[in-house]
Amino acid sequence: MVNVSPLAPKCFPKMPVIPGVSLAAGETKIKYKGRNDLMVAQFAPGTRVAGVYTRSLTSSAPVEWCRKILSSGQAEALVVNSGNANAFTGKAGIVSVERIVEVVASLIPCSTSKVFVASTGVIGESLPDKKLTATLPKLFKRLGENNWEEAANSILTTDTYPKGATRTADIGGTEVTINGIAKGSGMIAPDMATMLAFVFTDANIDPKSLQALLTDGANLSFNAITVDSDTSTSDSLMLFATGKAGNDKASPLDDFKEKLTEVLIDLACQVVRDGEGASKFIAVTISGADDDGAAKRIGLAIANSPLVKTAVAGEDPNWGRIVMAVGKAGEKANRDKLAIRIGGIAIAEGGQVISNYDESPVVEHMKGTNIDIFVDVGIAEGRATVWTCDLTHRYISINADYRS
Amino acid sequence: MVNVSPLAPKCFPKMPVIPGVSLAAGETKIKYKGRNDLMVAQFAPGTRVAGVYTRSLTSSAPVEWCRKILSSGQAEALVVNSGNANAFTGKAGIVSVERIVEVVASLIPCSTSKVFVASTGVIGESLPDKKLTATLPKLFKRLGENNWEEAANSILTTDTYPKGATRTADIGGTEVTINGIAKGSGMIAPDMATMLAFVFTDANIDPKSLQALLTDGANLSFNAITVDSDTSTSDSLMLFATGKAGNDKASPLDDFKEKLTEVLIDLACQVVRDGEGASKFIAVTISGADDDGAAKRIGLAIANSPLVKTAVAGEDPNWGRIVMAVGKAGEKANRDKLAIRIGGIAIAEGGQVISNYDESPVVEHMKGTNIDIFVDVGIAEGRATVWTCDLTHRYISINADYRS
Repeated sequence: MVNVSPLAPKCFPKMPVIPGVSLAAGETKIKYKGRNDLMVAQFAPGTRVAGVYTRSLTSSAPVEWCRKILSSGQAEALVVNSGNANAFTGKAGIVSVERIVEVVASLIPCSTSKVFVASTGVIGESLPDKKLTATLPKLFKRLGENNWEEAANSILTTDTYPKGATRTADIGGTEVTINGIAKGSGMIAPDMATMLAFVFTDANIDPKSLQALLTDGANLSFNAITVDSDTSTSDSLMLFATGKAGNDKASPLDDFKEKLTEVLIDLACQVVRDGEGASKFIAVTISGADDDGAAKRIGLAIANSPLVKTAVAGEDPNWGRIVMAVGKAGEKANRDKLAIRIGGIAIAEGGQVISNYDESPVVEHMKGTNIDIFVDVGIAEGRATVWTCDLTHRYISINADYRS
Repeated sequence: MVNVSPLAPKCFPKMPVIPGVSLAAGETKIKYKGRNDLMVAQFAPGTRVAGVYTRSLTSSAPVEWCRKILSSGQAEALVVNSGNANAFTGKAGIVSVERIVEVVASLIPCSTSKVFVASTGVIGESLPDKKLTATLPKLFKRLGENNWEEAANSILTTDTYPKGATRTADIGGTEVTINGIAKGSGMIAPDMATMLAFVFTDANIDPKSLQALLTDGANLSFNAITVDSDTSTSDSLMLFATGKAGNDKASPLDDFKEKLTEVLIDLACQVVRDGEGASKFIAVTISGADDDGAAKRIGLAIANSPLVKTAVAGEDPNWGRIVMAVGKAGEKANRDKLAIRIGGIAIAEGGQVISNYDESPVVEHMKGTNIDIFVDVGIAEGRATVWTCDLTHRYISINADYRS
């Protein structure tokens, strides 16, 4: 087995039951031997669904299928396999998805338009879907309410640990639960990785509100992280709400929104912490931008800069590279008001390095594993935080020294 | 001395005299010891100038100065120093530039609005301009028409070899000469690199046409290369035309345009071949795009992808990563018509890997140092070529293992 990332959380969280959700994992032997590579989740009838998918214009067959059926807003099953992404597989890929959802729909039974799918793994190889459909009946016989860690493990590819997060929220006096699992380590790792995240709740929320909550949450979490700036053909984030908590649909969703965003950020940061070769976790906060979107684009320019990421790997408080990255972002910045702090320590203010700048406390901060970069660009009130990891020799080893 | 890049040309080209241009190089000891770090060029009165500068919004004081005086369209001198970029130096940086151009203007003598400047090196340290102005009088005493290689060497920072290119062109039956020198290896190397290129000709061309020729040429050359996707605060490309060849201004410039573009592409590719840690030179050609701009953006998405660049470093014909990069470019692509060739060998057609695909000749191509990637995206007639290098352990070593 690979070594677990030095930035991994200490353990997988204890995940409570979500009424209306049951899960199982099994082994198809499509690519991996001796480990689970297929998960299914079954949802109580009436479960609502929302989804956010890759912006890639060469998206995979499963992503195309989910986009097509999302408009119904209803889900009764989710099927996820790892080892083969069913991407760039032409018409055969679509046929594979159709065969899978037909088998699931007959096992439940339900309409195929309520069966969501996701695949992660090798691109460009046709999916041997018979191995998958042959395994599905066994899985539907052993569905259970507590199989969270098993499910989280079965969807991994080059990840070094399973990713889970859980929160409870209050909707009009009723307690609801939110559980999430995710996978991802590079946007595409040695031919087989991607970012998948599935969130489940017993809250009773109409599909339109659910979609708005997920879209907003994704912008603050999965769309605010970067490992290597590469976008997979298969990235998928879905939120399933069974409604079993029985809360009043008319109650305000403020607390739910906050806790959902926490789950999403928690999962997204776990993906970064498993970034290929990562030795340091980096939070980049931008303030003073034209608006929040501009702040995020400046943050991502810093977070995607190979020169900033290698400087962090080398524990070098190289703020010149941060200035460079702000400049290339293409967003308004007042060079003569620029302020930079690393680890809370002021480095530059008013567009110049501060007088008597002492580098030593910054160097001390950079020896740690959690690096905080802060930049104020001096224009207006826009603000954003994005997360990334450093760029190390191990990233090169994982992606160059390996032959697929 | 550092090892010369394995992708370097065999030698510096023999550069002919350009009537109206004389050059000299000298040593200021601002940062480097025992090497030249300052060059000056003097131009015959009446010399025209065009310029293309960094798109960075935190551009350096010298870039701001050049932008300001460019509208006059006239140049009598160029001063370039290496070791200190005079960037992020606040008002003091502007004052340094003013002091330098005043000394040069009095030495020639000419108006300060005809004195162009460029600086490359450390960001955020104020420029000790007195060391520079003290050296200038000596240099103006030893100006010569043949000092091309000396000049090309004096502007280097982390480059491993000097970069020069020369062509002759025909304007209405008159032969004119075009010489160029450049520097650059990462967009910003360990705190001190950038891309500078200076092109000189004896052609007689009005400033407006000169600027149009340079802007078009830059789009096909320096704006079509990437080492690490990072943009310096100091990037500058300038073209000086003395008019001494005496060609008829009304003659067509087709051949001149072609040869100027050749010089620019030659220099730009030499910058890529000196890319930090580069072991392979990569040409990415896109056809079938919506227009030429779309083709270039798709090409740059591939050329900037760390996963594509590490695959090339690992000699891995990982076309799945090319599909991914096409998808993330955000430009129209017909997934079901996508065609991919590496080294001229067909890998995918019609959105799928070709039947009986044999990887071995592609693997053979990837063992070489010049890698050709071709993608047709099946939409329209847009076409572009961009150039980059691979991403290797040595890039990480240069940028992370080093402490400034």
